[in-house]
Amino acid sequence: MRPISGFSKLTKNEKINYIVQNYLNNSNIAKNTIKSFWHEDESSQKILDEFSENTITNFAFPYGVVPNVLINNKMYCVPMVIEESSVVAAAAKSAKFWLDRGGFQAEIVDVKKVGQVHFIWNGNPEDLENLFINSKTQLIEKVKPLCLNMEKRGGGLLDLKLINKTDLEEGYFQIWADFNTCDAMGANFINSVLEALGQEFKLITESELNQELQVIMAILSNYTPDCLVKVWVECPIEELNDPSFGMSPEEFADKFARAVRIAKIDTNRATTHNKGIFNGIDSVILATGNDFRAVEACGHTFAARDGQYRGLTNCSLENGQFRFELELPLSIGTVGGLTALHPMAKTTLDILGNPDAKDLMKITATIGLAQNFSALRSLVTTGIQKGHMKMHLMNILNHLEANEEEREAAKLNFEDKVISFQLVREFIGSIRNYQ
Amino acid sequence: MRPISGFSKLTKNEKINYIVQNYLNNSNIAKNTIKSFWHEDESSQKILDEFSENTITNFAFPYGVVPNVLINNKMYCVPMVIEESSVVAAAAKSAKFWLDRGGFQAEIVDVKKVGQVHFIWNGNPEDLENLFINSKTQLIEKVKPLCLNMEKRGGGLLDLKLINKTDLEEGYFQIWADFNTCDAMGANFINSVLEALGQEFKLITESELNQELQVIMAILSNYTPDCLVKVWVECPIEELNDPSFGMSPEEFADKFARAVRIAKIDTNRATTHNKGIFNGIDSVILATGNDFRAVEACGHTFAARDGQYRGLTNCSLENGQFRFELELPLSIGTVGGLTALHPMAKTTLDILGNPDAKDLMKITATIGLAQNFSALRSLVTTGIQKGHMKMHLMNILNHLEANEEEREAAKLNFEDKVISFQLVREFIGSIRNYQ
Repeated sequence: MRPISGFSKLTKNEKINYIVQNYLNNSNIAKNTIKSFWHEDESSQKILDEFSENTITNFAFPYGVVPNVLINNKMYCVPMVIEESSVVAAAAKSAKFWLDRGGFQAEIVDVKKVGQVHFIWNGNPEDLENLFINSKTQLIEKVKPLCLNMEKRGGGLLDLKLINKTDLEEGYFQIWADFNTCDAMGANFINSVLEALGQEFKLITESELNQELQVIMAILSNYTPDCLVKVWVECPIEELNDPSFGMSPEEFADKFARAVRIAKIDTNRATTHNKGIFNGIDSVILATGNDFRAVEACGHTFAARDGQYRGLTNCSLENGQFRFELELPLSIGTVGGLTALHPMAKTTLDILGNPDAKDLMKITATIGLAQNFSALRSLVTTGIQKGHMKMHLMNILNHLEANEEEREAAKLNFEDKVISFQLVREFIGSIRNYQ
Repeated sequence: MRPISGFSKLTKNEKINYIVQNYLNNSNIAKNTIKSFWHEDESSQKILDEFSENTITNFAFPYGVVPNVLINNKMYCVPMVIEESSVVAAAAKSAKFWLDRGGFQAEIVDVKKVGQVHFIWNGNPEDLENLFINSKTQLIEKVKPLCLNMEKRGGGLLDLKLINKTDLEEGYFQIWADFNTCDAMGANFINSVLEALGQEFKLITESELNQELQVIMAILSNYTPDCLVKVWVECPIEELNDPSFGMSPEEFADKFARAVRIAKIDTNRATTHNKGIFNGIDSVILATGNDFRAVEACGHTFAARDGQYRGLTNCSLENGQFRFELELPLSIGTVGGLTALHPMAKTTLDILGNPDAKDLMKITATIGLAQNFSALRSLVTTGIQKGHMKMHLMNILNHLEANEEEREAAKLNFEDKVISFQLVREFIGSIRNYQ
């Protein structure tokens, strides 16, 4: 196939025609499928189209809701956008379970954002460090006009430092900047300030120290370990008494805590453990028009912060109390970006009572924790294996060469009990002794 | 607000009414917005609804396409689903740039998937290890029926081993299983086999060694470092000669390679660097109905595999040759899941020529690399800073106290040149000397 020139300048219909002719065997059915996902209202569709480029239609993701989510004693109905089955059901099940046990607790640890100017300077590091200290006020003054709006809202540039990385790469330094971006994710604000800082410091350095400073790039960091939210559930262990567990509260708590520990010590399990947490997190991120790639990249970097990739949740069983907690960096916004522009993102924020960024961090993290609770609950009880338990019993009975009468008695007896080899052997043994 | 019971059993309209009444001030506009995103065809909407639970409508994401993507000499038009602006445009720009330089090369390194049975056994480890070796054939026989279909397609259970993790947690062992799942992502297949393996080994162990074996969980691992694709571009450095770079090919190559190295050595930069790669990756994952949480969790764990979270791409400049490469684990499917069920996921696969899983890995990784190339290209040239360059020149001229005549001459001279303090000072100096 020959390349096409000027594709981006074609109209939407021309783009569709090009694709259908060249890649879809000129199929009218395909063309109609593509167009069938357009929004009924042309101006609404135009808004969606303009979020991206070369757009020809929409990809529709299921938009569901989880009722009864009690966070810090406030009841939320949380929209979730997710294509994977069972995620919304799991969150709903978890929300209901904890509703009866005091709900979720959440708090913001900090909301610091980060940006870096990466540059190369091959002069004397001490000269540069002294110059940086002496010109800090000038640098801050320089970006003052860019910060005015953010400062009015209570945020702005928080701190500025020079970092010497020459041990890692010849001449490599950073200007490191901390920001508070209030209810915005803040990427544009941060990048503008960083670029101005880089240009100004280049100017000052080249003028004062007479040696070239090469700015490689000036850009925010998506790794924001100090933009952190903590959410947890807790209750007396004895209240973990759901009949579906098929085991005592103590055994459940013990097995659950062990599954959490396994995700802490085994990287292969940690990846899947955290993937489940992000099933919940991302569904809220998507529903609110936030950027899930930023949230994922940050969360997983955080999971690897001590040199091993680990599970993000913690579970403790102390003094008869079960406590399950998630601490996670979440740099998200409730203003800017798509949040007000996408009709369904806006509707999500309305349903959530138009939270500020901090409250949205709490809600999002809560759904992540709820998701992980449900996943582990299923994994350590009969959930994911339930369909296989009957088969398991049959296996044991085959192994014990049980007769028809013993089989029927065992099926009846173990219908609502946990099945283990010992228990079944003991049960069959007691029948045989009796006879 | 009081909790609601039986929400999941309400009809879709009843769910919407509950939300509108309780969370949206009974607004008819809100209700209409929600319903306006329904698919025009009821049966198509029903399919979308059933992907998840408690669904009330769809969330529409822009569906765009990137033409002219040349991979291993085959021309693709790649659909991308993404809400962030500039991502599709960046991929298109990159595709065009490399089209003129031989296109993208891609190869599959391996396609191994992973699953684990996590269990606790407090007996003598040697006894367990011997028992495992002796019962390996029996375990494989046991799951044979579950593997038949996959074996027919060329895949199946590849290997089985016992891992002693008791140094990390008392009594903690794993059965580790490797799989080939052909064109399926394979989660259901893997989980079924693992559950059966866990049950059978529990049975064997408790029967033979007379001590309880507690299966904590049996589940696939989303971390699949051996399900790996490699994609790269290369050309003589002198061909990196785009006029928009505003610098020589050598300078561009050097700055670009440095930006890649910085993402290797600085975690804060690595997170953002990889986030950009996943902008590309995820947009294809979304468009094909694959699971982006799985892909993200795996890729970021891989980025942290040596103990520090690092950038995923590599760049080399050797013997005058520029080479830029991405190696990334991608466990994705072209059969199963949403791939055939979601009309637009199916359309995506049609547009891509119905690739097998390996080809889809190549296409997806290519868009990730294309994305990273465009992001770095912008960052290290005038891209993200372009709007600020004029301001930068003004700053320098102010600093040099240039007069009106000098300013005009400088603006004209630097219109299409890189602006640096030295260059501007030299230029102004030459005017002043001349006068």
